[in-house]
Amino acid sequence: MTGSFVMLCLMWTNALLPARKYYHASMLSRLKIAEEVTKLLELKAQLGEKNGEAPSKLLLKTPKGTRDYGPEQMALRLTVLDKIIAVFKKHGAETIDTPIFERKEVLTGKYGEDSKLIYDLKDQGGEILSLRYDLTVPFARYLAMGKISSIKRYHIAKVYRRDNPSTTRGRYREFYQCDFDIAGQYDPMIPDAECIRIISEALQSLDVGPYTIRLNHRLLLDGIFAACGVPSNKFRAVCSAIDKLDKNSWSEVKKEIIEEKGLDESSTDKIGIYVSRFGGIELISELRKDSELMKYESATKGLESMELLYKYCNILQVTDKVTFDLSLARGLDYYTGVIFEAILIGDDVGVGSVAGGGRYDNLVGMFDSKHKSIPCVGLSLGVERIFNVLETKLNKEGVKTRTTEVEVFVATAQKNLHEERMKLLSILWDAGVKAEQSYKRNVKLLAQLQYCEESGIPLAIIIGEGELARGEVTLRDVVSRTEISIPRAHLIEEIRKRL
Amino acid sequence: MTGSFVMLCLMWTNALLPARKYYHASMLSRLKIAEEVTKLLELKAQLGEKNGEAPSKLLLKTPKGTRDYGPEQMALRLTVLDKIIAVFKKHGAETIDTPIFERKEVLTGKYGEDSKLIYDLKDQGGEILSLRYDLTVPFARYLAMGKISSIKRYHIAKVYRRDNPSTTRGRYREFYQCDFDIAGQYDPMIPDAECIRIISEALQSLDVGPYTIRLNHRLLLDGIFAACGVPSNKFRAVCSAIDKLDKNSWSEVKKEIIEEKGLDESSTDKIGIYVSRFGGIELISELRKDSELMKYESATKGLESMELLYKYCNILQVTDKVTFDLSLARGLDYYTGVIFEAILIGDDVGVGSVAGGGRYDNLVGMFDSKHKSIPCVGLSLGVERIFNVLETKLNKEGVKTRTTEVEVFVATAQKNLHEERMKLLSILWDAGVKAEQSYKRNVKLLAQLQYCEESGIPLAIIIGEGELARGEVTLRDVVSRTEISIPRAHLIEEIRKRL
Repeated sequence: MTGSFVMLCLMWTNALLPARKYYHASMLSRLKIAEEVTKLLELKAQLGEKNGEAPSKLLLKTPKGTRDYGPEQMALRLTVLDKIIAVFKKHGAETIDTPIFERKEVLTGKYGEDSKLIYDLKDQGGEILSLRYDLTVPFARYLAMGKISSIKRYHIAKVYRRDNPSTTRGRYREFYQCDFDIAGQYDPMIPDAECIRIISEALQSLDVGPYTIRLNHRLLLDGIFAACGVPSNKFRAVCSAIDKLDKNSWSEVKKEIIEEKGLDESSTDKIGIYVSRFGGIELISELRKDSELMKYESATKGLESMELLYKYCNILQVTDKVTFDLSLARGLDYYTGVIFEAILIGDDVGVGSVAGGGRYDNLVGMFDSKHKSIPCVGLSLGVERIFNVLETKLNKEGVKTRTTEVEVFVATAQKNLHEERMKLLSILWDAGVKAEQSYKRNVKLLAQLQYCEESGIPLAIIIGEGELARGEVTLRDVVSRTEISIPRAHLIEEIRKRL
Repeated sequence: MTGSFVMLCLMWTNALLPARKYYHASMLSRLKIAEEVTKLLELKAQLGEKNGEAPSKLLLKTPKGTRDYGPEQMALRLTVLDKIIAVFKKHGAETIDTPIFERKEVLTGKYGEDSKLIYDLKDQGGEILSLRYDLTVPFARYLAMGKISSIKRYHIAKVYRRDNPSTTRGRYREFYQCDFDIAGQYDPMIPDAECIRIISEALQSLDVGPYTIRLNHRLLLDGIFAACGVPSNKFRAVCSAIDKLDKNSWSEVKKEIIEEKGLDESSTDKIGIYVSRFGGIELISELRKDSELMKYESATKGLESMELLYKYCNILQVTDKVTFDLSLARGLDYYTGVIFEAILIGDDVGVGSVAGGGRYDNLVGMFDSKHKSIPCVGLSLGVERIFNVLETKLNKEGVKTRTTEVEVFVATAQKNLHEERMKLLSILWDAGVKAEQSYKRNVKLLAQLQYCEESGIPLAIIIGEGELARGEVTLRDVVSRTEISIPRAHLIEEIRKRL
């Protein structure tokens, strides 16, 4: 390779990689404003404290990097999670749950550089505990502890990272992970390919727009590092630096590799050329022509695996959804085989990866006294980012999400009829109808009907003294504002007909 | 009241109250064994550490008082939670979520004596945080912070208490709470009565057996304490002692009131007589005859409220499900009005309360700088205990819960047909059929069919070379073990017909 070709490649690398950072400006600014307001409120409260105000005036906020979810947000989240769970169930997964905290030693030595972001609990006498950092390590602990040799499970739960929260980029200190993993001694790439199909099905069903699933293999990366002259004890550290290419430019990553990881410039430049390459299955044969690389067994093994994975992806009809991308490294230490990461490729989105995962064959063994391991492969959907994308989309389209499922509102047209409302409600609830009333004895009819329209409740029952005397109720269709009289005896039947 | 009558009442009290502790022996012993095994394992591991074994041999357990939930337990839990959510939605509730931890000052001063059980996070630079102790205080913080004046919401999430875990009694350090609350300035007892109806509907729908919902009123209790000569600054402390009557005998509680709360014996004996009384609506008129008690406005106000509550309970058809019980006190400080607690009254259950709640009108005000409050009433279902009851019941009946929803298993009758299985799976998944295969290339057909029977999968598709040549598949009904041949083109249609 001539010097000028290397230069050209590096220039191309530098030009290409930063282009992978794209953030949607309007969503950004909306979230940015919210973040700034929070900061200002915090400063204001701190000033208040310093000026000797009453200590009773406590700072009313959620902890840094966390947030409440109101009814609208929860309605959207539950819809998203339901769709994801449906995909996981379609693939035959069971579900499990583990405690939110683990004995600290369970988490130690599993996350490499990221370990500093683990939340520890205070030592209040007893065990030393930490909040879980992901769902994968607790899953491995669960398998080892229960001596479970095979399982296909999903786990949707919150995890905790003392990261510098960038709420504008959908990065929080408390966030949901949606994991699906297949554990067991199986044949190569069959479960791995299914994981890629699952990511594709999930993103399709969530309607987040066009995406690609970037693929790479840790063995191939190891081969590349070896071919570039990286000593093997620095493989994981270099991986963790390369993983930052989705947010940082190559020149920043290069600086980190040289200055922090202590690699020489010539090796680093060679790595830079490799990690700029991406494409389809043809990249496998291209790499096979690289005689320097092919000297390393891990590289040939990695390429063989990628070839089989492509074959299965083809059968499972997801080849058009994947990109073989040598810049994909994944930050975590525990991956041992195929790694993958899905990104949205629409014009106006730029939320980073929305799914990721890979094979981790040695993690369970770290918990076993005889180091007996269970091979595992799994994926994690980045639901927080997906929520952000969908929220922005719904806001743009002006779609209003209903936050309750109320079918019938029971209203009264005159004063002091609240007991009659409650009698009717009791009948409706007995019949399984979702129904509510105002908790005030006397409310104006107009206010009751307005509430129905605002909340999207389809039906209203109105009772007044006339209706009571005739043994009837007025049934109102809230949208069309049409009303009919119905004998009380036929009420449930009539409601069922209309729902 | 003559001395001997007092004596008689006290004897009756002592005889009656311990009878409220009833625990199912077989469940107890099963859980007790599990607990003892855990303790022994812990001791064994500690011994290992002391004997200088390799530090790599880490203690493989979940933190004290916590547990993993395997697929069977999760399947049962999700069924239970789904039923509860259906009831909450029937009553028009929205849902919200809050972070698992709060700034410590948010929790301070809300739980009385129980504050010592709060889990604190380690100070890692930044805010001082604690894990949430219940969902009520975070809810009040949420209302105050968002200046929300009315909401009807449910919240199902884990809470944390550094209690002495008694896993035999279904008491854990990490457990789910299922809360439903109505916040807003409404008319007396209308939302309160609905909360009682909701508890009743939930327990009914969960099929946990006979139950009663014990009712009392904090104002009435205050009146009783005043009439017994308790100084008002000791009301809450006495409440917290009386709350233990569901686990301890009156003589133990009496000892605590005298020795720890510093009340004199004569006042305590008077309290003992009151708290032994329970019954129905007639208890209201009986207490009205107690001229000493009627001198206290809080007692008359409490009784008025109870009368209105009974009226509404009657309309909502839950009068036969409630008991007016003066020994009900509830431990938490924040209740201000009606309080309630549901217990199972079957022969072979004794899990303590399975639901509780009450009115807390001043809690939100504790977070508002101008002490503006939002009246609230709510309930919490003790799902961990309900899970235990239902698990025991299912075990006794020998019912096996399915942990997946797989509809079709794709099997092969000869070797090296795994790619054909994958092709079929891709078609099934595209059609939305829940389907799986073995992740091994070659498995004996018998093993594949056995797996279907064990997992309760209703249908199996079998392909062999014959089927492939004919463009057919064999569709097997797993239960009846009958098989038919179907052209591949009709497969999805035929499967849909049979599911």
